[in-house]
Amino acid sequence: MPHIALPEGLPGITAGFAFRPETAAPMRALAEALLRGPSPLSSGEREMIAAFVSRRNECAFCHASHRAAAANHLGGDYALVDAVVTDCATAPVPAKLKALLAIAAKVQESGTRVTKSDIAAARAEGATDVEIHDAVLIAAAFCMYNRYVDGLAAWTPEGHDAYDQMGRRMAQQGYAPQAAPVVPA
Amino acid sequence: MPHIALPEGLPGITAGFAFRPETAAPMRALAEALLRGPSPLSSGEREMIAAFVSRRNECAFCHASHRAAAANHLGGDYALVDAVVTDCATAPVPAKLKALLAIAAKVQESGTRVTKSDIAAARAEGATDVEIHDAVLIAAAFCMYNRYVDGLAAWTPEGHDAYDQMGRRMAQQGYAPQAAPVVPA
Repeated sequence: MPHIALPEGLPGITAGFAFRPETAAPMRALAEALLRGPSPLSSGEREMIAAFVSRRNECAFCHASHRAAAANHLGGDYALVDAVVTDCATAPVPAKLKALLAIAAKVQESGTRVTKSDIAAARAEGATDVEIHDAVLIAAAFCMYNRYVDGLAAWTPEGHDAYDQMGRRMAQQGYAPQAAPVVPA
Repeated sequence: MPHIALPEGLPGITAGFAFRPETAAPMRALAEALLRGPSPLSSGEREMIAAFVSRRNECAFCHASHRAAAANHLGGDYALVDAVVTDCATAPVPAKLKALLAIAAKVQESGTRVTKSDIAAARAEGATDVEIHDAVLIAAAFCMYNRYVDGLAAWTPEGHDAYDQMGRRMAQQGYAPQAAPVVPA
């Protein structure tokens, strides 16, 4: 039961978006730019960072939905996404992405936790300034989205299928208002 | 020294905005909607919530700048803003705002920390659903802005005057791109 009278039947953040369209528009535009806009990181990599941070923030809705979006970008490879979320140090992903995930983990705790040696480690694996920027901002942004969903106690659907469908829509149609995830079937 | 090659001479978050205009636009639009757009909470109240959360996240730049913006909205009353930031339970503000600040404090830790009794306490003081929503989202959004500034180790100017000027500009001109805070004199 949500903390405020959110529109019924809308999952997770989409209920908050429907409740307050004035703030929904820039929040959707930010997700679109961050996760699907131009970036040297692929959308699959960026959605994995989003799922990873959401899991660390214990946001079940954002973890499940961005896990599914990431898997959709990666040809349905849920196992890879789960490996990254569970332990990014041992997951079978390139060293550069591991270093960016390590920075995202610091940002999830606090921006002040990121050290020069975290940055140097990412650069040593070939990370550019834009890649470091995007990893920091994706992690920071999910510290907002996650708190918004759980701070309102928004409805979190259960079951794999709802999120698999939602993730496909997020990956293929994106986050702009006309592409809003609707009620899972 | 910032972690990446941010444009020099731009304070705090404005350097990140200049580095990545694609994400700056929705982040500025969100700040404008949240802090200056239509809301039953005054801009002074909303900027106090922003300063309060930023202080709890130990983000010196956002605390100082939103402290100044709040004071500007409140006729220059820095003492009131500082009282709220230091201890919202004893600050000389209405009980409804105290209850909303208590919710914001929970959101700063995690969205999952907000309880039904936190919400009931705010309602008992007359808080509406929109006021509760806005307090939750302002707190969540500053968990993003704060991490963005500190995760990039953006330049944090020192001294009261720089922030007093910045706060006046934020309060009077807002957060839209054409009103971007520029280098403090």
